[in-house]
Amino acid sequence: MKITIAGVGAMGGRYALMLSRAGNDVDGIDGWADNVNAINEHGLQANFDGEQVVAKIKAYEQTKIDPSAVADLVILFPKSMQLDGMMQSLKPVITDHTKILCLMNGIGHEEIIEKYVTRDNIFIGNTMWTAGMEGPGKLKLFGSGSVALRNVEDGEAATAAAKKIVKLLSDAGLNAEYSDNILYTIYKKATVNGTMNGLCTILDCNMSEFGSTSTAEDMVVAIVKEFSAVAAKEGIDLNVPDTVDYIKTTWDPNTIGHHYPSMHQDLITNHRLTEIDYINGVIDRRGKKYGIPTPYCTFLTQLVHAKEQLLHAK
Amino acid sequence: MKITIAGVGAMGGRYALMLSRAGNDVDGIDGWADNVNAINEHGLQANFDGEQVVAKIKAYEQTKIDPSAVADLVILFPKSMQLDGMMQSLKPVITDHTKILCLMNGIGHEEIIEKYVTRDNIFIGNTMWTAGMEGPGKLKLFGSGSVALRNVEDGEAATAAAKKIVKLLSDAGLNAEYSDNILYTIYKKATVNGTMNGLCTILDCNMSEFGSTSTAEDMVVAIVKEFSAVAAKEGIDLNVPDTVDYIKTTWDPNTIGHHYPSMHQDLITNHRLTEIDYINGVIDRRGKKYGIPTPYCTFLTQLVHAKEQLLHAK
Repeated sequence: MKITIAGVGAMGGRYALMLSRAGNDVDGIDGWADNVNAINEHGLQANFDGEQVVAKIKAYEQTKIDPSAVADLVILFPKSMQLDGMMQSLKPVITDHTKILCLMNGIGHEEIIEKYVTRDNIFIGNTMWTAGMEGPGKLKLFGSGSVALRNVEDGEAATAAAKKIVKLLSDAGLNAEYSDNILYTIYKKATVNGTMNGLCTILDCNMSEFGSTSTAEDMVVAIVKEFSAVAAKEGIDLNVPDTVDYIKTTWDPNTIGHHYPSMHQDLITNHRLTEIDYINGVIDRRGKKYGIPTPYCTFLTQLVHAKEQLLHAK
Repeated sequence: MKITIAGVGAMGGRYALMLSRAGNDVDGIDGWADNVNAINEHGLQANFDGEQVVAKIKAYEQTKIDPSAVADLVILFPKSMQLDGMMQSLKPVITDHTKILCLMNGIGHEEIIEKYVTRDNIFIGNTMWTAGMEGPGKLKLFGSGSVALRNVEDGEAATAAAKKIVKLLSDAGLNAEYSDNILYTIYKKATVNGTMNGLCTILDCNMSEFGSTSTAEDMVVAIVKEFSAVAAKEGIDLNVPDTVDYIKTTWDPNTIGHHYPSMHQDLITNHRLTEIDYINGVIDRRGKKYGIPTPYCTFLTQLVHAKEQLLHAK
């Protein structure tokens, strides 16, 4: 089984390491040359729950993929705005039989993926593992997690293929399960990013500080209503009060409330471009397609893009 | 003619000085004790187009108004959020004959004023003068300007009273005119504050920087459409493209583009509470009253209030 991990950052690195340690033939593709070189020279190194481990995998720079390294399964972990370029680069190693599993945050990545492969070969999922990176080729992996996934296209063959991927991941210790409800899970998770990421970025605060303001809940409710209206058009029942309660758990200063969301780190701390077009921007685009007003998502997307430009983000 | 200026800051100070120099009996009311004391000790001092001048006026702290100092005309210049308290303090010097002229920025102040006096005694206007303050009791006044005003209530008596106020102001060199169209003027000016103030505050940028972003115009158009829809319900025709063009003149780096709007100075620089409830907040409230959706104004108001709390603004 040849598995290609596209994007060997923190989370892609975890999947590469665990799948390699389970005996699979794993390739890593990454846009960061230092990372690729470190992996090829020293292996993929990790502090894995306190133990120093190394996985021997072959890594390629995205522009220098070996066309003979055809993949049975590609697992996608690039940044959202780099997905299209990554799919373009992966073309040589994708055949009609290659399965594509997308575990990226956000909604609607399959719209880009299906420009390159047929829908019966696309699988989407949601990973609840954590992962950290300490430098090129060096991971820090602690704690437990799980992953749920499903075939994008209904049908027996696609379902069977999805269940084979589930077994492959579970055999590697990744606690995978097949989930008919995966679009619901992905939408629900996206509402957390669709509220906390943009709002904490624009207001320059952490999640607990945001939650302490008198207008926080009204803003979150307005945004979740837009996600829910768009989801309903896709047959997904995203209950607004339940989702708002779920989001509010991130405000707890005793758990994760003192964290700044990743978009805040990207834009405000590091002046990097954000993934807003693949979070609130998706709701804006789908709202227009379905004739549903989504002014909060649209306005928040506009504000984040303005802030990117004001900070000369790259 | 006893004229009481409520709020003897920069602009109130200009009106007090010019009306006093024209021979009127002027009182000043202010919440800032140092300012009141300086005016009473040294007079209201000004660098008036390069000339050092002093006007002898009587000043009162807002909580210590002399109830015998009954006013023929009160001109209102407090901060929007202090208007209700100011009207409360002014009660002793207001009779059935006292005229109230409101020249404050923003929309809808008459809703507060009419809790204290009958509508036939209320006049609203828009001042295009500039004014600066160099310290307690010290003004810096340069350049020319004008002021337009109108009676709130239609009718011959109110119109005649408005024209008497126009003459009084013009006699003091304030270039006043009676304007039937004043609500249009006030709404149009409010759209500048309703876009530049909140947006530059939330994005922490000046007007020219804001205007240089790719999403600036879309955000301005969305907000102006909401102002226009609410204004239409009040019989005012606020043309959207014309108003957007008018707002865009503030983006010119060769004129005023490098300025930060006053709300940015208040909140981001000085951590003071803003007047957002009397700018975008008015559109939010009237939108709800008229059944018009105003999501951009509502969201912007919520963001500014959140930012006030995050910065512990007072």
